[in-house]
Amino acid sequence: MEKKDLQKKQAGTAALTYIKNDMVVGLGTGSTVAYFLEALANSNLNIIGVTTSTITSKRCSELDIPIVDIDAVDHIDITVDGADEIDIDLNGIKGGGDALLMEKIVAKNSKENIWIVDSSKVHKTLGLFPLPVEVIPYGSGQLLRQFTAKGFSPQLRCHPNTTKPIITDAGHYIIDCYMNTIDDPYSLADYFERQVGVVEHGLFLNICNKMIIGGDTVKIKKSQPKQPIEIN
Amino acid sequence: MEKKDLQKKQAGTAALTYIKNDMVVGLGTGSTVAYFLEALANSNLNIIGVTTSTITSKRCSELDIPIVDIDAVDHIDITVDGADEIDIDLNGIKGGGDALLMEKIVAKNSKENIWIVDSSKVHKTLGLFPLPVEVIPYGSGQLLRQFTAKGFSPQLRCHPNTTKPIITDAGHYIIDCYMNTIDDPYSLADYFERQVGVVEHGLFLNICNKMIIGGDTVKIKKSQPKQPIEIN
Repeated sequence: MEKKDLQKKQAGTAALTYIKNDMVVGLGTGSTVAYFLEALANSNLNIIGVTTSTITSKRCSELDIPIVDIDAVDHIDITVDGADEIDIDLNGIKGGGDALLMEKIVAKNSKENIWIVDSSKVHKTLGLFPLPVEVIPYGSGQLLRQFTAKGFSPQLRCHPNTTKPIITDAGHYIIDCYMNTIDDPYSLADYFERQVGVVEHGLFLNICNKMIIGGDTVKIKKSQPKQPIEIN
Repeated sequence: MEKKDLQKKQAGTAALTYIKNDMVVGLGTGSTVAYFLEALANSNLNIIGVTTSTITSKRCSELDIPIVDIDAVDHIDITVDGADEIDIDLNGIKGGGDALLMEKIVAKNSKENIWIVDSSKVHKTLGLFPLPVEVIPYGSGQLLRQFTAKGFSPQLRCHPNTTKPIITDAGHYIIDCYMNTIDDPYSLADYFERQVGVVEHGLFLNICNKMIIGGDTVKIKKSQPKQPIEIN
């Protein structure tokens, strides 16, 4: 197993510590969450899952993890999800796996959010990972021009080696903005939230409560207090 | 013809004065716009239309009005649309006809916006008309609870006499918020823009440049200057 995959597995497995019987658990999307799902399926815990993508729903079905629709529960106790990039304030960028909209809906309805990542995802500031912006297909060409004028170097996300746009689970396009560095994520989030045709953006600010970083020692950072906690 | 319909026809026909040959014209949705489309089809004007709903696209096809996709043009010269309610500052509520999202995308990409209404639509403040909010189906039940807690008396818009939600052209639900009166439309718009799962809301603020009100005299209000101009 490569180092990065090992770290993903370490982080995914470590998240299990926070899951208790009878919890409603938000289940993220991606390769790190895949390890968490396996660990959850192999545990004796009885939980109800709320998923963030059709791919995660499918995987839960294979692993016999019971899931319900988000509107069938009145709250979600805890959500475990990955992140594409995370900074030292526990703000992050998500959406590399096309699932940012459902991920953010589940996260916002969760009492607690735990992010599981390998150490390559942690940066001092955000922006190296291209920021995904989910948009309405109608008029998306106008948004691409507007983002270009703003210097965001936008690219419509397409199926590999094609010019066919990917369609999200909710029927939208994704525009990846190559920001390089994001000096003020809050004002950027505010900008995207005000644009007509933008459904949601991949900046997840003030959402993550704990970050688990895989590594020789699993590091856990809590958003309050901000100091990292190391577990050996 | 009933008085209201007569006024709709008067307003729709009067809007034709602002259309010039070779313009790219945004074409709204609804019963008042229907009169504008008829007048446009009966004129000798050559324009290119950009529509705001499948229903308007269909009507243009019947009337032989040429239309293109919004992304096929680099700008829209002028958009003519109706409104469900409009206040004396030319702010309005739209979305009664399920088309607010495409209407707002077209409006925001237009150099000028003309609204055509009958006199019953004009109120001192907004809110008597229920405010439509277009939302992602996934998690819409959580938004309904949240809006209820805020005192918005929300109702999921359904097909008549059923509990089957209507689906917008973009694949979303609409929640109607029975606000009764909206004291501060700007802060309310800001609230909705920040909610995850809300795609767009029916408050159209600082968008309308001219309002044409049908009546014994057709009244035209311009957003700058704010004084109404009466035409006899």
